[in-house]
Amino acid sequence: MQNVQSKESEVAARGSSGNEDFKTWLARSRARVEEALTAHLKQISKVAGTNSRLPEAVLYSVRVGGKRLRPILVLECCRVCGEQPDKAMPAALAMELIHTFSLIHDDLPAMDDDDLRRGKPTNHKVFGEALAILAGDWLLAHAFSLLASGGYENKTVPALLEILADGTKRMIEGQGADIAGEGQPADGELVQYIHRHKTAALIETCCRLGAICAAASTELTDALTHYGHHLGLAFQIADDRLDATGSQEKMGKRVGKDADVAKQTYPAAFGLEESAAQAAREMEAALRALEPFGRQAEHLRSLARYVIQRDS
Amino acid sequence: MQNVQSKESEVAARGSSGNEDFKTWLARSRARVEEALTAHLKQISKVAGTNSRLPEAVLYSVRVGGKRLRPILVLECCRVCGEQPDKAMPAALAMELIHTFSLIHDDLPAMDDDDLRRGKPTNHKVFGEALAILAGDWLLAHAFSLLASGGYENKTVPALLEILADGTKRMIEGQGADIAGEGQPADGELVQYIHRHKTAALIETCCRLGAICAAASTELTDALTHYGHHLGLAFQIADDRLDATGSQEKMGKRVGKDADVAKQTYPAAFGLEESAAQAAREMEAALRALEPFGRQAEHLRSLARYVIQRDS
Repeated sequence: MQNVQSKESEVAARGSSGNEDFKTWLARSRARVEEALTAHLKQISKVAGTNSRLPEAVLYSVRVGGKRLRPILVLECCRVCGEQPDKAMPAALAMELIHTFSLIHDDLPAMDDDDLRRGKPTNHKVFGEALAILAGDWLLAHAFSLLASGGYENKTVPALLEILADGTKRMIEGQGADIAGEGQPADGELVQYIHRHKTAALIETCCRLGAICAAASTELTDALTHYGHHLGLAFQIADDRLDATGSQEKMGKRVGKDADVAKQTYPAAFGLEESAAQAAREMEAALRALEPFGRQAEHLRSLARYVIQRDS
Repeated sequence: MQNVQSKESEVAARGSSGNEDFKTWLARSRARVEEALTAHLKQISKVAGTNSRLPEAVLYSVRVGGKRLRPILVLECCRVCGEQPDKAMPAALAMELIHTFSLIHDDLPAMDDDDLRRGKPTNHKVFGEALAILAGDWLLAHAFSLLASGGYENKTVPALLEILADGTKRMIEGQGADIAGEGQPADGELVQYIHRHKTAALIETCCRLGAICAAASTELTDALTHYGHHLGLAFQIADDRLDATGSQEKMGKRVGKDADVAKQTYPAAFGLEESAAQAAREMEAALRALEPFGRQAEHLRSLARYVIQRDS
């Protein structure tokens, strides 16, 4: 059927924006990421004879999965810059593995001490702390190797590498500040530092990587960087609000914990109402950053709206 | 004075091999690495306003220092392939930071649980477990970024990146096997797996990186890889023997611990005498691998001898 459908009718079926329905697109993008990830994980699981459960620990946390929003962002930012999204797939997978590494280490007893993640026992609850630390380390190193093996032109690799390393370091710096801020009186400036680094840095990195994979102009790369920055802040404020108001069942992890350990959160520093308003402002700023892309960026716009509306 | 000395008399002063005395060379190489590392650490410490002691934790472990054998190896492998050693300095520093990351994580309570390293309290004893985990993570990510900012040609970066990631992952796999093997009956094959991965992989990586920085032929790169492989095995067997026979004062860390926690070591699997013989055989294999380099490789030969003779 598909092959007899004209391009015009395809566009018509996707509505006036020339984009298919957001939810359909999100599901299809996620399926595309899952497929590539599964193929890639098969290669990882072939690392036989390691004489430990390390490969199993690595695969466990990647497979537990989530919304795969970060890799989807990489692919879509590549697409809106005029390149086939699949060109960005190795960078997209690298981002998902960096994200997975960060979750494994964040959940450790010495860090956030979480037993549950995405409704399943955390890595160290299943494999022990030593293997959880090593699984995170392995994923971090492996993510970088995907930039070398991803089929990118030689001149693109150093740029991708620098962006990935920079985003990862900023995320780690944010996690350090997050831990150090626990139990301290809520401090608006500190909360903003933590949000910018712990969450926004990696979201921004996704957008930059996607643009670089498409060899986009500095102008478009910067526009997507701003989008990612504000999207990341909106995302983290929404996450803080969900921890304060959501249910464990919906979230797949323990909630209400931020208040228990006196985390530096947006609601703690500014209250729930102002947090909602700030999340909306960040979303607006994210939308404004997309102006140069016109109707091409409809999915990125919907994604920003989706992020602050999820389950809240 | 130096500027009036002819090249001929310089060579004469260095002895018949055209190389200066090994100990002088080692000290000079170490000083060169320390200088570059200090300059680089100044940049790291400028990462101000991180709202945590993370930069301090990072700098602490890098500064505690050691013999800096890994970066020295990178530089010298670059030199014997006909290139200025400084060309390999960014890769050399990357290796030292990867090594430092691995020590910080290995010393954690969940891993080897060591309080002392190079005669000083381990990272987590000073900064706590959370910051020690994050400092290791940060160093790992930062090491990769050095390949992007190191002034290497675009075509060299993907190769360096792939080698660094591969060596790091193998080292982590070896550490996983090391932890999993604790308390199990000594198993010769397992010990060899652990040695090949935990130690030899990174030493090999140093040699390969040095060769690639010099754009060496496959033949010379492979020769140095073999040298690094056997040197790494000799090094780890010597290390196992020192743990069994050395003093804490000389080693700067707790000794006799391998036996206490029933680690998979060469002496445990094969006995002290056979371990010494095997270390000597690995050293011979390392020396044989250097044949294509002729007299150029005198320091690498002396280094192999030095490694198995240190303090034992």
